[in-house]
Amino acid sequence: MGVVTAPKQDRSRATRQRLLAAAVACLAEHGWAGSTVSAVAERAGVSRGAAQHHFPTREDLFTAAVEYVAEERSQALRALPTQDRTAVVAALVDLYTGPLFRAALQLWVAASNEEQLRSRVTELEARVGRDTHRIAVQLLNADESRPGVRETVQGLLDMARGLGLANLLTDDAARRDRVVAQWAGLLDEALG
Amino acid sequence: MGVVTAPKQDRSRATRQRLLAAAVACLAEHGWAGSTVSAVAERAGVSRGAAQHHFPTREDLFTAAVEYVAEERSQALRALPTQDRTAVVAALVDLYTGPLFRAALQLWVAASNEEQLRSRVTELEARVGRDTHRIAVQLLNADESRPGVRETVQGLLDMARGLGLANLLTDDAARRDRVVAQWAGLLDEALG
Repeated sequence: MGVVTAPKQDRSRATRQRLLAAAVACLAEHGWAGSTVSAVAERAGVSRGAAQHHFPTREDLFTAAVEYVAEERSQALRALPTQDRTAVVAALVDLYTGPLFRAALQLWVAASNEEQLRSRVTELEARVGRDTHRIAVQLLNADESRPGVRETVQGLLDMARGLGLANLLTDDAARRDRVVAQWAGLLDEALG
Repeated sequence: MGVVTAPKQDRSRATRQRLLAAAVACLAEHGWAGSTVSAVAERAGVSRGAAQHHFPTREDLFTAAVEYVAEERSQALRALPTQDRTAVVAALVDLYTGPLFRAALQLWVAASNEEQLRSRVTELEARVGRDTHRIAVQLLNADESRPGVRETVQGLLDMARGLGLANLLTDDAARRDRVVAQWAGLLDEALG
C-alpha cells in the first residue's frame, strides 16, 4: 500500500501548493472581489472539485495562501547570512514590497469590511507579525532587555509596512532606498 | 438676482459637502465594492440625480471625497499650536488612524486593481503626500538643508502610514503609543 500511497500524497501536496501560489497571485492582481475558488482553480490548472476538496471555502483558500507564503518568506529570512544592519533593514523592507504584501493587503482591507474574514485574518496577521518581529530582533542582534529596544524594532517594521503601501501604485524604489539608508543609520545608533 | 442666487449656491455647496462626507464614511465602512453613487446619495439624503449633477462618475465622487477630507485635515494640522516634537509626532500619526485613512486605503487598494481609478488616485496620493510632508517639516521645525533630514521625516510619515495599517483590524492604540514615544525621542535626537 505504501508504494501506492506515497506518490498519491505527493500529488495531493503538489496540487495544494499550486493552488496556494495561484491564490496569492490572484489576490495580488485582482483583489478580493476578483478572487474566487474557481478563478484560482483555473489559474492553477486544477478542477474546481479538487480545489474545493483542499479548501472548502473561499476564506480557507485565501487565508491559507497568505499564511503559506508568509512562512516561506520567514524561512528565507531566517536563512540569511549574518550581515550588517543596513543590509538587514533592506531585507526586512523588501518583505513588504512584493506580491505577498500586495496579496496580504488585499486580504486585510477586505477583512475590514467582511465579518466572516475578519477574525481569521486578525489572528493570521497577529501570528505573522509576531514571527516577523522575532526574526527581526535576531537578525538585527537587538537586545530587547534594554528599555526602548522592543519599540525601536516595532517602529522599524511599521515603517517597512508603510513603505510597502507607498509602493502599491507607483515604483517607489529610489525614494525607498534613501529612506532605508537613513533609518538604518538611526536604528544602528539606537540599538548600540 | 444676487439675492436669489446666493442661497442657491449655498444650498448647492452644502449638498456637495454632505455628499463628500457620506462618501468617505461609506468607503471606510463598506470598501470600494460597496461604495456607489446611489448608496452615498441615500446616506446623504440627496436624490441620485442631484448627486450625479455634482459628481458625474463614481470615480469623481470618491476621489473628490478623499481629497476634500485630506485638505480639511491639512488645514487643522497647519493650525496646530507650536508644541514639542513628541506631540507633533503623535498628531501626525493620528492622521493615519481615523476614517479618512481607512477611506483612502480602500481607494488605494481598489486603484491597484482598477485601471480607471489608478492614474487619478496616484496623482491624488502624490499631491496629498507632498502636502503632508511640507506640513510635517514645518511642525517638526526640521532643517531640510541638512543631509538626511528629508529622509528622516519621510521615514516618519512611512512609519505613521504603517501604524495606520496595523490599526485597521484591531485597536492598536496601546502599542502605537509606546512606538510613537520611542521614535519621537530618536527623531528628536536625529533632527537636532
